Amino acid sequence: MTPLHFWFEFASTYSYPAAMRIERISRAAGVPLVWRPFLLGPIFRAQGWNDSPFNIYPAKGRYMWRDLERICGREGIPFRRPSRFPQNGLLAARVVCLASSEPWLPDFVRAVYRANFAEDRDISDPQVIVGILESLVQKAGDVIERAGSSENKERLRLQEEEAIRLGIFGAPTCMVGEEMFWGNDRLEDAIAFARGSSVVGGSTVR
Amino acid sequence: MTPLHFWFEFASTYSYPAAMRIERISRAAGVPLVWRPFLLGPIFRAQGWNDSPFNIYPAKGRYMWRDLERICGREGIPFRRPSRFPQNGLLAARVVCLASSEPWLPDFVRAVYRANFAEDRDISDPQVIVGILESLVQKAGDVIERAGSSENKERLRLQEEEAIRLGIFGAPTCMVGEEMFWGNDRLEDAIAFARGSSVVGGSTVR
Repeated sequence: MTPLHFWFEFASTYSYPAAMRIERISRAAGVPLVWRPFLLGPIFRAQGWNDSPFNIYPAKGRYMWRDLERICGREGIPFRRPSRFPQNGLLAARVVCLASSEPWLPDFVRAVYRANFAEDRDISDPQVIVGILESLVQKAGDVIERAGSSENKERLRLQEEEAIRLGIFGAPTCMVGEEMFWGNDRLEDAIAFARGSSVVGGSTVR
Repeated sequence: MTPLHFWFEFASTYSYPAAMRIERISRAAGVPLVWRPFLLGPIFRAQGWNDSPFNIYPAKGRYMWRDLERICGREGIPFRRPSRFPQNGLLAARVVCLASSEPWLPDFVRAVYRANFAEDRDISDPQVIVGILESLVQKAGDVIERAGSSENKERLRLQEEEAIRLGIFGAPTCMVGEEMFWGNDRLEDAIAFARGSSVVGGSTVR
């Protein structure tokens, strides 16, 4: 079965419902899931934006917040509009790079997203990330320290380079091989593609 | 039943599958449909863009064409990537303003979209629009002439002002009262909202 690579950014609004749903639906479909954190900042700056497009274009931003509220309501995902947007998810992304194969990783990802989009907490604050880690692992402080090592910082830089190479321009983005699915609205399509493409030996399914 | 106002632009890629689907699904749901043509140009220029964002941001544009191909394939809608993008839909939009209550209007809208996105024809060419009208009405030339009258040009200008007042930033956009649904992906949600909001007397449904 072709794995689904789930590219996400902790600051990204539509990544929130997607991150809360992706493990459940990929597991139900038998599609292997790979969590791929990255940062939108460098990608947005390359497009000439020094802020979220939802802040730069207020009409689009107003719509997005209402749309996100509707989506979360429908999916039963808690939501409270954060007072800070976008937040800096660098530390949390580094933890994900460090812990990509740990069994607690999906819980960590979801807890950070909840802190941002349901609890209005400051996810750039190391104490907030430590608090989340302490509920999941022994020696949370060690995890934070290793997340900040040069070797691990390099892991996130390489992820970023790969995101750019793949042509990723927003989050969340699901990649199944070279096939791209952008947005929370496309999770089910990405899963169907991963299942279909395995059935027909990797060729595209339309 | 609260009507659904379908705001569309003939140049807009995602308006194509939406325009091909909206009459069928609104009729099946018993939701009154109002066709609202407008132009994205003035709205994009107000955001600092002098071209389609799909041309300005090539990674996003590449994805959009592939995504549109997938959507059309799934919905059984013919698609061939046009050689010109975006096309100028001004004349066709004026015809829609003139003929908003004519029984042939939905067929006209769909035929113009097919000319653009399935047949790679130049929809800014009056002969193309006349050709489409001739298959639908008597005296197609008269329709074109009246579409270009000062009075009818003013109709489209007023539509444009209303789109801006409503905070519309892209196409297609469905408005149900003041509730906005952006994109082909939200047609079903807009229909469900129109049905739900009528049941509970016009209040919002979440």
